[in-house]
Amino acid sequence: MKRKSKEERQKELLEMLEKDSFYTDEELSSYFNVSIQTIRLDRLQLGIPELRERIKNLAENNIDKVKSMKGKEIIGELITLEVGNLGISILETTNDMTYSKTSIVKGHYVFAQAESLAMAVIDAPVVLMGVANIKNMDPVKPNDRLIAKAEVVKVRDKKHYVHVRINNKNHVQVFRGKFIFDEIS
Amino acid sequence: MKRKSKEERQKELLEMLEKDSFYTDEELSSYFNVSIQTIRLDRLQLGIPELRERIKNLAENNIDKVKSMKGKEIIGELITLEVGNLGISILETTNDMTYSKTSIVKGHYVFAQAESLAMAVIDAPVVLMGVANIKNMDPVKPNDRLIAKAEVVKVRDKKHYVHVRINNKNHVQVFRGKFIFDEIS
Repeated sequence: MKRKSKEERQKELLEMLEKDSFYTDEELSSYFNVSIQTIRLDRLQLGIPELRERIKNLAENNIDKVKSMKGKEIIGELITLEVGNLGISILETTNDMTYSKTSIVKGHYVFAQAESLAMAVIDAPVVLMGVANIKNMDPVKPNDRLIAKAEVVKVRDKKHYVHVRINNKNHVQVFRGKFIFDEIS
Repeated sequence: MKRKSKEERQKELLEMLEKDSFYTDEELSSYFNVSIQTIRLDRLQLGIPELRERIKNLAENNIDKVKSMKGKEIIGELITLEVGNLGISILETTNDMTYSKTSIVKGHYVFAQAESLAMAVIDAPVVLMGVANIKNMDPVKPNDRLIAKAEVVKVRDKKHYVHVRINNKNHVQVFRGKFIFDEIS
């Protein structure tokens, strides 16, 4: 494949990151067939901060929208939030989170990301989680990036039904959860 | 009610704690209608350590029996363990574990106690949690003592079905969970 010129590459890189902020430098380097250093220089010239910084910036814009809990109590970084509708959060998994025998991330970290995001999207001041039905579809490894998406599917009789889906950074679904929260007053 | 003599009280106290190690000094004091100081003196004279110490001692005797994970990875103190059959653990809840808006313990702490105990009772070297169906029956407060009991109800096709029930210190059920773990090799 012929390499793109620097101008072409930077233009496309900017467009890609506007559509999806979550490309890593590694992914971009392999996509454009250039070194990671080149991508870093591109970002520097274009004034685009590194991925971790981009995630943090997005999270800071969303955390004050949360109604049902304190925003900082969410496990993971809150990327998108439309209260009463949907939310997206990102959790970076680490070696500390794994079972030592399997090197697989403990289920309750994934559960905590899902449950706290599900709670964050609810349009009510105080809720309690009543029922959850969850499924782990694929083992979660450390040093992965879990992208959770929560959607409010129904609200009836002060019960909020929320579905959560979590994909890993390779776009493989690792978790799905169906939650019912009860409003309390 | 006529108070028992010191000899009668100490004899009965010893019998009670042999049957159930988890009475607090407060519970014993109200049962015998004496001050907490009197109960503490009784324990001292009988050589019975305080509750926290009794729980720790029991946990140390059980932690090495765990097959499917490292014993220290269990959330809570492991009180009883019959691998392949049943396990009991105790988790003391604290203010750190609560949502600030409700002062109710976050669901993922309770989930973590249940999931890790369910995993601990399984008679297999390596397992992964596949499915969980959980229900929170009553809000969990801080400074409570959660007593979780996990039972293996079925093993078929390398799938282990485990039920977990959690009561608070007032013997009110706060949680039930049904888990399916898959053996991996």
